[in-house]
Amino acid sequence: MVIEEVHVKDRYTHVRARTEQICSPLTPEDHVVQPIVDVSPPKWHLGHTTWFFETFILQPHCKGYTLFDENYGFLFNSYYETVGARVIRTNRGNMTRPTVPEILAYRTYVDDKMEELLEGDLEDSILQLVELGLQHEQQHQELLFYDIKYILGNNPLFPSYSSASAPSSQKTGAPAYLTLEEGVHTIGYQGNGFHFDNELGVHNVFIHQCALQDRLVTNAEYLEFIDDGGYQDFRFWLSEAWEWVKTHQVKAPYHWHWVEGTWSYYSLSGGLQKIDPAAPVTHVSFFEADAYAKWRGLRLPTEFEWEVACNQYGLISEDSNFMDSDHYSPTPKIDGNNQLYGDVWEWTASAYRPYPFYQAPEGAVGEYNGKFMVNQMVLKGGSCATPSDHIRSTYRNFFHPHLRWMFSGIRLAKNL
Amino acid sequence: MVIEEVHVKDRYTHVRARTEQICSPLTPEDHVVQPIVDVSPPKWHLGHTTWFFETFILQPHCKGYTLFDENYGFLFNSYYETVGARVIRTNRGNMTRPTVPEILAYRTYVDDKMEELLEGDLEDSILQLVELGLQHEQQHQELLFYDIKYILGNNPLFPSYSSASAPSSQKTGAPAYLTLEEGVHTIGYQGNGFHFDNELGVHNVFIHQCALQDRLVTNAEYLEFIDDGGYQDFRFWLSEAWEWVKTHQVKAPYHWHWVEGTWSYYSLSGGLQKIDPAAPVTHVSFFEADAYAKWRGLRLPTEFEWEVACNQYGLISEDSNFMDSDHYSPTPKIDGNNQLYGDVWEWTASAYRPYPFYQAPEGAVGEYNGKFMVNQMVLKGGSCATPSDHIRSTYRNFFHPHLRWMFSGIRLAKNL
Amino acid sequence: MVIEEVHVKDRYTHVRARTEQICSPLTPEDHVVQPIVDVSPPKWHLGHTTWFFETFILQPHCKGYTLFDENYGFLFNSYYETVGARVIRTNRGNMTRPTVPEILAYRTYVDDKMEELLEGDLEDSILQLVELGLQHEQQHQELLFYDIKYILGNNPLFPSYSSASAPSSQKTGAPAYLTLEEGVHTIGYQGNGFHFDNELGVHNVFIHQCALQDRLVTNAEYLEFIDDGGYQDFRFWLSEAWEWVKTHQVKAPYHWHWVEGTWSYYSLSGGLQKIDPAAPVTHVSFFEADAYAKWRGLRLPTEFEWEVACNQYGLISEDSNFMDSDHYSPTPKIDGNNQLYGDVWEWTASAYRPYPFYQAPEGAVGEYNGKFMVNQMVLKGGSCATPSDHIRSTYRNFFHPHLRWMFSGIRLAKNL
Amino acid sequence: MVIEEVHVKDRYTHVRARTEQICSPLTPEDHVVQPIVDVSPPKWHLGHTTWFFETFILQPHCKGYTLFDENYGFLFNSYYETVGARVIRTNRGNMTRPTVPEILAYRTYVDDKMEELLEGDLEDSILQLVELGLQHEQQHQELLFYDIKYILGNNPLFPSYSSASAPSSQKTGAPAYLTLEEGVHTIGYQGNGFHFDNELGVHNVFIHQCALQDRLVTNAEYLEFIDDGGYQDFRFWLSEAWEWVKTHQVKAPYHWHWVEGTWSYYSLSGGLQKIDPAAPVTHVSFFEADAYAKWRGLRLPTEFEWEVACNQYGLISEDSNFMDSDHYSPTPKIDGNNQLYGDVWEWTASAYRPYPFYQAPEGAVGEYNGKFMVNQMVLKGGSCATPSDHIRSTYRNFFHPHLRWMFSGIRLAKNL
Repeated sequence: MVIEEVHVKDRYTHVRARTEQICSPLTPEDHVVQPIVDVSPPKWHLGHTTWFFETFILQPHCKGYTLFDENYGFLFNSYYETVGARVIRTNRGNMTRPTVPEILAYRTYVDDKMEELLEGDLEDSILQLVELGLQHEQQHQELLFYDIKYILGNNPLFPSYSSASAPSSQKTGAPAYLTLEEGVHTIGYQGNGFHFDNELGVHNVFIHQCALQDRLVTNAEYLEFIDDGGYQDFRFWLSEAWEWVKTHQVKAPYHWHWVEGTWSYYSLSGGLQKIDPAAPVTHVSFFEADAYAKWRGLRLPTEFEWEVACNQYGLISEDSNFMDSDHYSPTPKIDGNNQLYGDVWEWTASAYRPYPFYQAPEGAVGEYNGKFMVNQMVLKGGSCATPSDHIRSTYRNFFHPHLRWMFSGIRLAKNL
Repeated sequence: MVIEEVHVKDRYTHVRARTEQICSPLTPEDHVVQPIVDVSPPKWHLGHTTWFFETFILQPHCKGYTLFDENYGFLFNSYYETVGARVIRTNRGNMTRPTVPEILAYRTYVDDKMEELLEGDLEDSILQLVELGLQHEQQHQELLFYDIKYILGNNPLFPSYSSASAPSSQKTGAPAYLTLEEGVHTIGYQGNGFHFDNELGVHNVFIHQCALQDRLVTNAEYLEFIDDGGYQDFRFWLSEAWEWVKTHQVKAPYHWHWVEGTWSYYSLSGGLQKIDPAAPVTHVSFFEADAYAKWRGLRLPTEFEWEVACNQYGLISEDSNFMDSDHYSPTPKIDGNNQLYGDVWEWTASAYRPYPFYQAPEGAVGEYNGKFMVNQMVLKGGSCATPSDHIRSTYRNFFHPHLRWMFSGIRLAKNL
Repeated sequence: MVIEEVHVKDRYTHVRARTEQICSPLTPEDHVVQPIVDVSPPKWHLGHTTWFFETFILQPHCKGYTLFDENYGFLFNSYYETVGARVIRTNRGNMTRPTVPEILAYRTYVDDKMEELLEGDLEDSILQLVELGLQHEQQHQELLFYDIKYILGNNPLFPSYSSASAPSSQKTGAPAYLTLEEGVHTIGYQGNGFHFDNELGVHNVFIHQCALQDRLVTNAEYLEFIDDGGYQDFRFWLSEAWEWVKTHQVKAPYHWHWVEGTWSYYSLSGGLQKIDPAAPVTHVSFFEADAYAKWRGLRLPTEFEWEVACNQYGLISEDSNFMDSDHYSPTPKIDGNNQLYGDVWEWTASAYRPYPFYQAPEGAVGEYNGKFMVNQMVLKGGSCATPSDHIRSTYRNFFHPHLRWMFSGIRLAKNL
Repeated sequence: MVIEEVHVKDRYTHVRARTEQICSPLTPEDHVVQPIVDVSPPKWHLGHTTWFFETFILQPHCKGYTLFDENYGFLFNSYYETVGARVIRTNRGNMTRPTVPEILAYRTYVDDKMEELLEGDLEDSILQLVELGLQHEQQHQELLFYDIKYILGNNPLFPSYSSASAPSSQKTGAPAYLTLEEGVHTIGYQGNGFHFDNELGVHNVFIHQCALQDRLVTNAEYLEFIDDGGYQDFRFWLSEAWEWVKTHQVKAPYHWHWVEGTWSYYSLSGGLQKIDPAAPVTHVSFFEADAYAKWRGLRLPTEFEWEVACNQYGLISEDSNFMDSDHYSPTPKIDGNNQLYGDVWEWTASAYRPYPFYQAPEGAVGEYNGKFMVNQMVLKGGSCATPSDHIRSTYRNFFHPHLRWMFSGIRLAKNL
């Protein structure tokens, strides 16, 4: 693995600072709660990402390192069975201590030691672990945006996170199609940069002739589905999806609110507001994405089709809407950008399963991806909450099909 | 009703300040969470008690009063169906906004208006509502102690609330008995001070000859029950109690922890510490109180026996351990004080049902007590978290029989 | 205790045969299921009542007795912790074996041995146990009617249990009042016949002047409550009752069905049919009884008031509607019969708690009543499913306040 | 589609009779219950399969047909939203009526009409529906075995279904490997016989070089996993699988019982008995199959690898253990038979998702397969409860990954 050209210490400092910056508009109160099991308290993210460096790097590789607090291991482990007991997930939101200032002190303490360590000559294996820790922190940066949006968006006061509003609305034209060539294609990560274990197991996949739309499904398009009674017609829904719709009385994407006779949504930029018809629809579950596609008479692309399309048509540019854009909301298509990267994670038709040659690494790091490979679906492409240097065409994100508190969206495909 | 001799405005100021003082050792983070449905976030208590004055006094009786924030009614109503929609109870702990400073500003705003109002000549009916609001706030002061103890006592760091420790331990002698005379006794509130609706309906009750112990059951005595296998022997337990013991694997009072081969408990004064054998046992459910009494071959007193005993033997003195003592823990018996008042609420054998002539008042105030009169048990006497001017022999507190996050304890009785 | 004048063996034979007669209209399929936790499969009742005689009489007191089947103890124990492991209650309805014929063979086997035993000279203590077993079986006869009604009444085909219809409807006059004398009254069983432990502890109770209606509340009267929006107005409901109404969307008594624009109910006699306006309302919970009383501006009697009224005004006559009448439904008041006995169990205002001198017996028999003395309400008077020789004014029945699959009803009272 | 050579009327009569024969060893009581949501009462299967012919064939295509009972549509619909309201699944086990004789009369009634119809000249589309109904009935024959085994195997008396025991045990040799050629293979049904919609969408799949074992994993092999602590070591388990193991305290395959120091299992043939070490392990979930494979350092085959292997190596012969063998248990490998067909359904590594060109048919029949294509895994090959004329290499069975009341088992694979 070739480590990024930026010096690792600078990268470390930059990534770590960004996390604190994400939390800076929050009050201490906002840092504490866990309204649903999928959301973690922001202060837990601050602590957990720090615990990762303390546990996997400082403790084993920094001589004479003294733990900041012995109890923190117990408090900030997430799901690594290898590393011992942990606060059960549903209990995270009741932990008022350590406080935000105490956790920030923990971060400073660990950062000082890490930066000291990173000034020295380090074995490649340690540098790889540092990079894993930073990628891990970037994933939590993205989760922070989901969780903050959930916490503030469920408050009856609908407080804004950022006062800046996302780029203004404009009409979006009809979608065109990106066609794929029929035949055997190679799938999986083949470079020498950072990647996760689940991208390995490079292998061949046969893809039949098909085409993907050149942009994401918009709010205006999705509204047609709502207005056509899509949520009331079982024929478009998988059986479990239909149970989910009925049980939770789902009527629209998450964060949408029916206010005075029209649909509004809560946005991190600007709070409660009218829907932008040209912006990509987001906060939809796989269940909704699949139902929408059926209603249109089309389908979702497989993860393989998506990856091949992205290798051919994908582009990371100034127009890409990543976390770095500071919009925190998907934005309308700009000519020449097919939105394969950024804006919203795109649900694929593929269940999250191991690649043919997949091998989980040994030890705690091996728990990172492999053990989640059942009952989840693959999403591709990153979102407006993804750091721009954290995404690849081979990146495999995954969520349960009913979840939608994240920036998830839809791209349609069809056979040719 | 004769209003207290203290001028009502001074009393208002004093009570309101006391609530804020109770919260002053807390961090902002401590104010937010709701770890179980029975616990409310401290900042909710701060807001809700203020909402009471705003809704029931300022809004209807203060000309030109402008609401501090229109949304607060929705946020801070507790269970008054009469007054409109409310945040469902289990959701209280997810409301990070308004923040603590915002709620304190709300308090100041309402207090200013209230104090202005209280300087004028007020109708008796309004003065009575003010007094009800203050008594209501005192009840929430007591709940604040329970809830704070729950929040801090369930944190793996066991943070202290107060560094002062409760009066030092000393051996307690064997209990003596307070005997009651057989015959018809009158029950219920007959004075002209403040009282709740559920104390009215003065009526006669026939009491057979019996006697109550002259002190509370101690930790040392309760430990004998534990050590004798009391929690493992179904014969002492009501059927629902036994299910509760097995489901929750109950082995000791709440806030007790088995640490390094001995029982410790979490206390607001001093955090995690060795049990004081002479102090009254607390944080026991009715289920436990009843099982303990059966194991001893004795029984709990009825609420009527307790009230008659209290009228004859009860004493509020300097030795009484109320909130005003600032111990926040029950303390060992002092000679001459039979602990009928203060220390812990005493579970009685009586189900919480209306007195024969009970009438719920009209309107929202009528929801205060009457609608809870099923599936709960009566407790008497106040606790170390009760303001000393908030208790009477006729005061009827009530909790579900499985609850024990409050300062509840045991006094034994027997037939003669 | 004086044993009944009827020879015990004849009584044994009679009671046991009656149980089988109750099940005789059922198909084998009807005997198996347990649609809710409160209902037991009819074949379980057949086995359990037999197990009682085998376990408590034949096994300890009949030399050389061989168990019919070793597994039956495990299958047919109900809740006697003293006697060992048992099939958990929710699992009863999945036990297809033993079959009905096998259980009837079990009954025959035990009956033969019991009748042999009863021909000999028996100690009084054994005779008392036999009588307890028969009273126990009579209680299960009553439960059989509840459970059969639940099983058949929840079947979309609404099969009839009995083709005979209950006495024809007629208008019922306005209720008159039975007045009680103010003063000290004695409560509890003082005779020398059979009684349960919970009727003992004879003691004095002071009763204020009051009066009870001279008949049960009718369907027509209860319909006024429904039509007046009683189920939609929280003011009449206890807090837990209101939750129950909303959660279960309760709109009428159990077994009532809104069919083609009018209320019908399912009856054991004749299946689904129009409501008889003059018949007593039944299948109401305590929550509904209490709400109805509040809506009328009246109240429920306490169990003590009821017992005193019954001693003065109660009458078991040919007009009483017990199981022996074979109506299996409450019937309209007949002049001169105030319905204190039979028709429906009457909810009282009293929580089910021990009498002052109550002592639970030693051993398994001690689990019969005492351990249920929390969170339940007392009902008095027996029902149309109660054997006429199984009821007394001192009899204390008890159910949780939300239950209503049994024949429960309402009598109103007022202060004077 | 070419209809089977056997005349359809004979085939109809044969299949319908077989269903009743499966139920013939049951008592009426055995037909009623639904111990878990996945199990349906046997009498429900008898009714539902009949309802299928009545609803989809007789009602639309048989002039003047009179419904046997109007309520049966409501009672016996399973999950066809298109066809109207249905008894919710968890309630099936409370329906004691119609009785078994009534349902058998329903079968006779429908069979008479069907046989009359089948004697005439029928359009191909109707014949196809008849064949679908028969295939549907064969699926329920298989489910009947699962459900009967669950009902009897959970009865403390462990009654036998059949007294004949499965072929006697013998040692099984080490597995050999069936190798697959690397390259593009065609997947999906290409014949002109009966098939389900989910087998269509013939398409190409690239398969890398790999090999499948030539027999199923045996009980002896699986015991090594148990004895090695496999159920206690999280490293082998998917995250949701580990939760499942802990929540349900899973320690062995379903129907296994630890009796007097050794493992026994319940079998339809012979009841509770010692495990046959050479027989294939069955009643394992996907979670267990996957964990076992990881523990062995191998993996499960994908559904595509399995289909290609089956096309090359699979054989339906006299040695195949299907329902027709009347063993009702998987049996040890016989030389020359690699067990790809029969014995147990084999968990594959593939999530159940639509093939690239999959199209759900219009109408109720379209609900047969497509709407279940999420959160389930594909199983292949049929089992000892599958009719031998009901299976193909392209047949895609599917179950949720935690289920194991069916005859499910394991075949291992490896990369080459």
